[in-house]
Amino acid sequence: MQIDGIRLATAAAAVKYQARDDVLLIEAEQGTQIAGIFTQSSFCAAPVQICRANLKEHDANELTYLLVNAGNANAGTGEQGLIAANEISKKLSQLQNVSNQQIFPFSTGVIGEPLPVTKIIGVLPNLVDKLAADNWSHAANAIMTTDTYPKVSKTSFEHQGKLFTVQGIAKGVGMICPNMATLLSFMATDIKISPLLLQKCLQDVANSTFNCITIDGDTSTNDSLILLATGKANNHEITTMEDELYSKFYAAVHKVALELAHLVVRDGEGATKFITINVKQGFSTDECRKVAYAIAHSPLVKTAFYAEDANWGRILMAIGKAGVSDLDARKVSLFFGDLCIAENGKRADSYDEDKATKLLKNKDIDITVNLGRGDAETTVWTCDFSHEYVSINASYRS
Amino acid sequence: MQIDGIRLATAAAAVKYQARDDVLLIEAEQGTQIAGIFTQSSFCAAPVQICRANLKEHDANELTYLLVNAGNANAGTGEQGLIAANEISKKLSQLQNVSNQQIFPFSTGVIGEPLPVTKIIGVLPNLVDKLAADNWSHAANAIMTTDTYPKVSKTSFEHQGKLFTVQGIAKGVGMICPNMATLLSFMATDIKISPLLLQKCLQDVANSTFNCITIDGDTSTNDSLILLATGKANNHEITTMEDELYSKFYAAVHKVALELAHLVVRDGEGATKFITINVKQGFSTDECRKVAYAIAHSPLVKTAFYAEDANWGRILMAIGKAGVSDLDARKVSLFFGDLCIAENGKRADSYDEDKATKLLKNKDIDITVNLGRGDAETTVWTCDFSHEYVSINASYRS
Repeated sequence: MQIDGIRLATAAAAVKYQARDDVLLIEAEQGTQIAGIFTQSSFCAAPVQICRANLKEHDANELTYLLVNAGNANAGTGEQGLIAANEISKKLSQLQNVSNQQIFPFSTGVIGEPLPVTKIIGVLPNLVDKLAADNWSHAANAIMTTDTYPKVSKTSFEHQGKLFTVQGIAKGVGMICPNMATLLSFMATDIKISPLLLQKCLQDVANSTFNCITIDGDTSTNDSLILLATGKANNHEITTMEDELYSKFYAAVHKVALELAHLVVRDGEGATKFITINVKQGFSTDECRKVAYAIAHSPLVKTAFYAEDANWGRILMAIGKAGVSDLDARKVSLFFGDLCIAENGKRADSYDEDKATKLLKNKDIDITVNLGRGDAETTVWTCDFSHEYVSINASYRS
Repeated sequence: MQIDGIRLATAAAAVKYQARDDVLLIEAEQGTQIAGIFTQSSFCAAPVQICRANLKEHDANELTYLLVNAGNANAGTGEQGLIAANEISKKLSQLQNVSNQQIFPFSTGVIGEPLPVTKIIGVLPNLVDKLAADNWSHAANAIMTTDTYPKVSKTSFEHQGKLFTVQGIAKGVGMICPNMATLLSFMATDIKISPLLLQKCLQDVANSTFNCITIDGDTSTNDSLILLATGKANNHEITTMEDELYSKFYAAVHKVALELAHLVVRDGEGATKFITINVKQGFSTDECRKVAYAIAHSPLVKTAFYAEDANWGRILMAIGKAGVSDLDARKVSLFFGDLCIAENGKRADSYDEDKATKLLKNKDIDITVNLGRGDAETTVWTCDFSHEYVSINASYRS
């Protein structure tokens, strides 16, 4: 798996983890456009602040570098955090003879601790030497924190006899309630597209993929989603949404992003279930999202799913607390898959606890809430809440 | 412990629990005023709907009854739930020869299952026979669900040679993020006060006590907080906040309510810590509450407290996701007790991990966040998040 114009390398800097690669360098050739979306946290990390600024100054005529470390978030580190990230970027820009603003830093890990600058600078020459087009799988491994497996996705499509590819990697898997993107995800494509349209594409895709997942309701300080477009596969640059190629491209980016987002949820800290929450017949998408997230964030709903207990009353509770004004409980219905659980705001006459319990034994569970007050709908994906979640997060720093 | 004008009785109806009292009857003499505050859930339970209606029709010239059951919430039960509760009320009103609207029903327990009407009606004669003034402690026991101990509080004060008493009971201890009151709490006093002022007093007290606690961020369908005033201790009825007696009375109600609210948090499902979250220097009380609840609801913060791990970066994360617009992270500071953990949005120069860790070994933990942008402040109380929480809620129905 590779993208023409992109090379990658990983190295072990012992930022936090020992005996594994924990730093990733991605290089994009001249001509590459970059789009990025970042956390909306008020406490956004130093690298996020730098990426935002660099995005405005980016020059597609120079090489572009993404430098990522796992194990330390470089967040809650104040001015010192910016100095640390800039020191590393400066070293890399000197090594590769590019401008400072071409270096995009990313960090993920423990918040509040100083970034070990010397360790990361120490592996830069080695990273540069090892850059290769087929290192995507190593890359996906090097950015993991509490993830239990690497997350990669790829798709290709044809247009007028030419082949285009979109692929990406992501990492989770705690502090996941993206308010722009998941912790870290890097996607790349060989299409030629204007930077404005690339950014619009990424934002639209994120809104129906990464921005529709949650594991624990906690939004990271470091969420970053990047899409690189090297332009190697075509000569004609797409500049408008009306371009025939755009809709094919959009579908491909959406497919890869959705698959990565789902992989993050499936690997949610301690997760044993993958839960799809559909909310339909809402007055607005906004209220559908409120209801979906009230369910997805309820510890009582999540522990019931973990227990495979058809305690669906807790879902009604979550709908009730979602803050939808003037909701008429008597019009609300609830389904597990196609099985009607509740209708008219109460247990369905046809309710069958054995059937409901059997459905909950599946790893993948679909629930649908009909609000009975309009045509809006939305879907959110989440996981359950297990003992293992507590174990992981009671020991993550150690 | 007793209140002149109030009698109580408990009985075992096997609503869900076996071999323990699970139904409570409270009788208030003629002349008693009643105030009540209820859940804001759109899925509020049948008894809550009936209580709200009865409150408007209540006649202080008749006897007043509160009838409570534990083990079944009678929520998510639609029209059938109203019929069930009314059937029981009607039986009691016939037995005691009072109007229907004098019977206030309360339920707590599993949501969505039909209320076992016959079982509850079966114990009514026995309840009526056993009514006695000194049954408060039995009452506190009979309303428990996942609570590990009964919650009672009492205080007295003197005014112009007369003694006044306020006392109450409460139960929790999951699905606790009161948006009006905790699951169930019944308070009583012997003061004579107008119904309007009694309601105002209860609302004001709830806003700084029960409405400032959270265990898991889930708001119950059944939250009900009741204050009965029998008027036995004085002849003069308080009708205005300017009355000298009112401020003493308000302080007493506040003291009892705060103690009950704290007892609920200390007994939070699986809780090992009692955490006080102070947010200061906010622009508005509203934004202070947003920050306090973002911290109090974060599973990552709560598991770190459980682990006694000074992973304070997670608190910065929670502040960051709270949705305070234009928050300047560089002005934020964080304290554990008097120990400065972070200042200017980053680790304090004086930070001492050993001292921080030592503080977290206490059962009671105080944290203070200064937002550095105004004079508003608030306090919220919560608990940690343990393996035991998952165990309790993965097996609650069984």
